[in-house]
Amino acid sequence: MVALLESYKDRVEKINEYIMRSLEVVENKNLKAAMAHYPQAGGKRLRPLLATISCEAVGGRWSAAMPFGAALELVHNFTLVHDDVMDNDETRRGIKTVHTQYGVPEAILAGDALFARAFELIPDSDTHDDRLVQLVDIIAKAVRLLAEGQQMDMDFEDRKTVKDTEYMKMIELKTAVLYSAAAQGGAVIGESSEQEEEALREYGRLVGLGFQIWDDVLDLTSDQKTFGKPVLNDIRNGKKTLIVISALEDLHGKEREDLFKALGNKKATPDQLVAAKDVLDRAGAIDHAIEIANGLVKGAKDKLSVLKDTKHKKCLESFADYTVTRKT
Amino acid sequence: MVALLESYKDRVEKINEYIMRSLEVVENKNLKAAMAHYPQAGGKRLRPLLATISCEAVGGRWSAAMPFGAALELVHNFTLVHDDVMDNDETRRGIKTVHTQYGVPEAILAGDALFARAFELIPDSDTHDDRLVQLVDIIAKAVRLLAEGQQMDMDFEDRKTVKDTEYMKMIELKTAVLYSAAAQGGAVIGESSEQEEEALREYGRLVGLGFQIWDDVLDLTSDQKTFGKPVLNDIRNGKKTLIVISALEDLHGKEREDLFKALGNKKATPDQLVAAKDVLDRAGAIDHAIEIANGLVKGAKDKLSVLKDTKHKKCLESFADYTVTRKT
Repeated sequence: MVALLESYKDRVEKINEYIMRSLEVVENKNLKAAMAHYPQAGGKRLRPLLATISCEAVGGRWSAAMPFGAALELVHNFTLVHDDVMDNDETRRGIKTVHTQYGVPEAILAGDALFARAFELIPDSDTHDDRLVQLVDIIAKAVRLLAEGQQMDMDFEDRKTVKDTEYMKMIELKTAVLYSAAAQGGAVIGESSEQEEEALREYGRLVGLGFQIWDDVLDLTSDQKTFGKPVLNDIRNGKKTLIVISALEDLHGKEREDLFKALGNKKATPDQLVAAKDVLDRAGAIDHAIEIANGLVKGAKDKLSVLKDTKHKKCLESFADYTVTRKT
Repeated sequence: MVALLESYKDRVEKINEYIMRSLEVVENKNLKAAMAHYPQAGGKRLRPLLATISCEAVGGRWSAAMPFGAALELVHNFTLVHDDVMDNDETRRGIKTVHTQYGVPEAILAGDALFARAFELIPDSDTHDDRLVQLVDIIAKAVRLLAEGQQMDMDFEDRKTVKDTEYMKMIELKTAVLYSAAAQGGAVIGESSEQEEEALREYGRLVGLGFQIWDDVLDLTSDQKTFGKPVLNDIRNGKKTLIVISALEDLHGKEREDLFKALGNKKATPDQLVAAKDVLDRAGAIDHAIEIANGLVKGAKDKLSVLKDTKHKKCLESFADYTVTRKT
């Protein structure tokens, strides 16, 4: 699976160059530094990769979709900057968050400017004007839905219980729409048929859902060194993930107590956190989530049946598998 | 001059209906309420008016530019929401700011969603795809420059002195680019010649500069009831407006002391604020700013010479005059 990312190393390098070059237009030094803080810290660039591979899978050139893919990456980074302000997080993957380093006003502004810059990049995508207009619509709608998802996530924090269907809706908005936009937009740029575009849109959505559930799993089953960020964070923050939701349906007595000792308790001890994780594990909730993630990814791969058999289609299959087998 | 706005009353009503209807698509109640907080509080809708009149002045129908104009208004409102968070302002024109009413995370998110929604509206403008792409580019660039202007404004707060050229650059970015975008975009939708588009772009820029300098004047010369918001605020907040900058070049001794007693002093008494204003007035700095604003507006009107003589051109002249004669 790592082989997949390895095979796109050169492409990721070109995407990174394009992204960093796109920020050079910013004149104000403070603003530019705050905008570049996350993009220059690296990342797997999964959304640009998905956009460019989708473009190839319908017969297009990958580079035609690079500006659109970079726009998605800037949008992703803009949401990270603003989410970190909203969540008061001090670090992200080992570096200071933008607002911790540059201040809250600067972080709000840097996010806004990354968002604006993303829309400036779209017209650089190599396709016809009617398709460029469609790409604008795809990204704008995705960001509006992302905001709905983030608001839903915040609303959940104030609630005692959340249903699994509500959780699925939330991660669809907060995570899956951008993967869906990446795959659909790549197809649009590659001049796909409507059937292919629809299939890739749905593929991206299912992959995005699987990605997020797998992220919840990794938070519980990985270690900080492998995961690249602190683990058991979702328990500490009281996140009502699918794992917690499904466990709560069955848990009683001491086990339920053990979970609630740690869930949403910012001062929970490492022992309490591990005890809560063990409760979730013994309840079968982690395995249940893994099964669901695998089912989503299988569904995603099934959607690809309308595409011609090419190496790019195989890469999309590997991409889907990667989202629910990755260690980081 | 009020007659100008009066004559567009029906249009403003249609624009307001369109704007409010455009927010109905938002599903989350909290998010929708926070997004609608400023738009539903009213406003003069100067940017949509400018876009639609510019469209008419080059031979287009005003309604063709309404979605684009509404998009500009949403962008304007999004920047107000975020600026209020950055400035920690509790009220805006007599109502609670979005973050005071709904919380900071909700305000950040509502701003983001207004921004996204703006880009969803652009393709509803009645024009060809190549021009729609141009409109996306115009608004995206404008927002990126707005962010540069806001950052510059924040940078100024930490500095002892600011040059008048720096101030002009800052208000060009923070205020004028959106007026410029309105006038240029309206021309694009009205299928103007390149010469007309360029003239209207420059007209909008000059009008926007005049608008902002006149705003600085009103902060000093109006009263709260007429102005619709607290006056002498810029002194209290230590804003280095053109008026303050030009006065500081000449002031010495007690007068300079009187100004600095109030400038940037959040605890300044009403007497201290009025004394500071009187110092600026006696130094001739207010009259100087009025002269500059008038000169900019004259320059803006001169740009219109390339347009055919129509009633719409006359309205653009009145619009320019309005920006530097308005009481509110």
